[in-house]
Amino acid sequence: MRQVCVLGIGQVPVQELWDKSLRELAVASIVAALEDAGNPAVQALYVSNMLGGELTDQAQLGALVADFAGLAGIEAFRVEAAGASGGVAFRQGYLAVASGIHDIVLVTGVEKMTERLDPQVTAALAHAHDGDYETFPGATPASLAGMIMQRYIHEHDVDRGDFAVFPMTSHQNAVHNPYAMYRKAISREFYDRASMVAAPLNMLDASPTCDGAAAVVLAPAQLARDLGRPVVKVIGSGAATDTIAVHDRADPLQFAAAARSAAAAYKQANKWPEAIDFFELYDDFTITAVLALEACGFAERGQGVRFANEAGVGLDGRLPICTLGGLKGRGNPDGATGVYQIVDVVQQLRGTAGANQLDCRVGMAQAIGGSGATAVTHILEVEK
Amino acid sequence: MRQVCVLGIGQVPVQELWDKSLRELAVASIVAALEDAGNPAVQALYVSNMLGGELTDQAQLGALVADFAGLAGIEAFRVEAAGASGGVAFRQGYLAVASGIHDIVLVTGVEKMTERLDPQVTAALAHAHDGDYETFPGATPASLAGMIMQRYIHEHDVDRGDFAVFPMTSHQNAVHNPYAMYRKAISREFYDRASMVAAPLNMLDASPTCDGAAAVVLAPAQLARDLGRPVVKVIGSGAATDTIAVHDRADPLQFAAAARSAAAAYKQANKWPEAIDFFELYDDFTITAVLALEACGFAERGQGVRFANEAGVGLDGRLPICTLGGLKGRGNPDGATGVYQIVDVVQQLRGTAGANQLDCRVGMAQAIGGSGATAVTHILEVEK
Repeated sequence: MRQVCVLGIGQVPVQELWDKSLRELAVASIVAALEDAGNPAVQALYVSNMLGGELTDQAQLGALVADFAGLAGIEAFRVEAAGASGGVAFRQGYLAVASGIHDIVLVTGVEKMTERLDPQVTAALAHAHDGDYETFPGATPASLAGMIMQRYIHEHDVDRGDFAVFPMTSHQNAVHNPYAMYRKAISREFYDRASMVAAPLNMLDASPTCDGAAAVVLAPAQLARDLGRPVVKVIGSGAATDTIAVHDRADPLQFAAAARSAAAAYKQANKWPEAIDFFELYDDFTITAVLALEACGFAERGQGVRFANEAGVGLDGRLPICTLGGLKGRGNPDGATGVYQIVDVVQQLRGTAGANQLDCRVGMAQAIGGSGATAVTHILEVEK
Repeated sequence: MRQVCVLGIGQVPVQELWDKSLRELAVASIVAALEDAGNPAVQALYVSNMLGGELTDQAQLGALVADFAGLAGIEAFRVEAAGASGGVAFRQGYLAVASGIHDIVLVTGVEKMTERLDPQVTAALAHAHDGDYETFPGATPASLAGMIMQRYIHEHDVDRGDFAVFPMTSHQNAVHNPYAMYRKAISREFYDRASMVAAPLNMLDASPTCDGAAAVVLAPAQLARDLGRPVVKVIGSGAATDTIAVHDRADPLQFAAAARSAAAAYKQANKWPEAIDFFELYDDFTITAVLALEACGFAERGQGVRFANEAGVGLDGRLPICTLGGLKGRGNPDGATGVYQIVDVVQQLRGTAGANQLDCRVGMAQAIGGSGATAVTHILEVEK
């Protein structure tokens, strides 16, 4: 397997983009990523998207996006694993280049959620869960997260208010990210007053529905060196699953897929939690962020909230997370999110994260589908 | 790249399976394929499916199917490229084993179309086409195929009745396939009398909506040799795209993606059309079969219908096609179809095709999405 780097990145500002279509969003992110990469010849395009069929009446996004990006002819297809879609597409791109199947692979994640209104959007997002045994009886993404959060509070005797550190961190970090949806810091008081969505989960514990697209160009690391470009290498990649339904797990407070995929990425990278400078984790709901910290070995079981409050997860904390706003502050355009996370990691490693720039060398991103049923973890390192 | 074989195959009978759910179908095909392969330890599962979200309210099929197949934990995700989905999933599985990323990969294609009624099913199938420029103005899969067929008849001066050879062949070949939906031969008179769907395309020019699932186990070829099992190797694989909309093509009578993907597969296999003993082509509509024959070099441009009638595409013809019923006779459970095609090829190469058995050594399968926008071609050879 040869070394692989991210040669180009592109993204569109996450918003409710009423005047932009699914294909326009995808193409805008691709044009930006290709330009950033120096417009290399691309051999394949992997598109990550969850809801094109349900909300935009559009499937076969591989061919469609390739076509409208001026790339008709190349190999192209779509992957889907709910919220983990972007991680899956990036992993497939990474593997294709690493194994020599292709030299240059383009990965774009795109989601257009504002084409329909609720309850249709929430109903479509609920397709990520077990239709027969969770969704049909009435569970929604937020209610499932709320139940896990309630169990966490009960079992670990945590104060609900202590969860505030997660949305506060993401919102704070989004302030200086021009691609973020909510560029506004929130206070602890604001969090405490937020309306309940699915108790104990409140409105500020949930990431917003929105539109967006992000893209990356993957290439052999040697190409970046030859071009004198920053060499941001993919040094670890792992993917895993868990039972799709939360009630089928021996321990509903353990994200086994997140743990397995992180373990695989750590092993490949030969780096362990203490070597990770920052972590773009999946804060679709606050409780997901907590369980991701624990699954990936940054905190012991039941200690994720305490870790965030005591060791710190802000830009100056022991483990900065969601450094450009995460899903809560930047927005969570479902199938696109995993690719945005990679774009964030690359910006930090290149030193182009602006006001939020960290002194860093190794970053990690993890995308999660459903209530932790699919997880994909990547570790990237910049050659300095 | 190491040699890869299909170690196991499994399928469920294609029907309107009202009493079976999406997950039950997928799991049944997987259990059969794993048993056929001797129950090896699987490292990854790729699920091909087009309409789970639209018709069954279910996404994240990778995790869901892995879970219910007793494989929770392994890497799993879904791919989608409309009718080419099964070909894409098989190609990803092949590449993963060939490149050494995984040793054993399970690929299943599953579609559950009878969960909803028309017009919802047709509307969902139309997601395969260009939503903004084909479907929204009113085109359907059948009307697009009808227009291409009309253009073909006009440009090549072909008698409409001469298309009958394609559905007659598929129906004839389905008679002895216990997994086929329509096990009944049809006559030329029956074809001529069939009601029009989108003139000149009649009911017998269109494959049926239905339910089904098929699965294959991919492994290093050496494993099949070590186990003393039939060694059915993947010797060529290619994928390509074209413009998604038919009206954007310089020549609407040329399937450029089918041609490109076949050229890539031929080149890798170092075999050319004359070396192909039979061809599991994509007869979702009769005109698709004609254009596939031409795109893959079996007939000159405009000669596909003549080739089928004169050289023959039946079991005793120059190029047997759809040897176990194809999409027309076996049925076309969209996202599953590409995997059924591979299962058919393997049955022929193993010599287990029963009454339809050919004397053969090299078989080809091609899956096509939309009006030819995505195409994936595979060539398989048995070691004798």
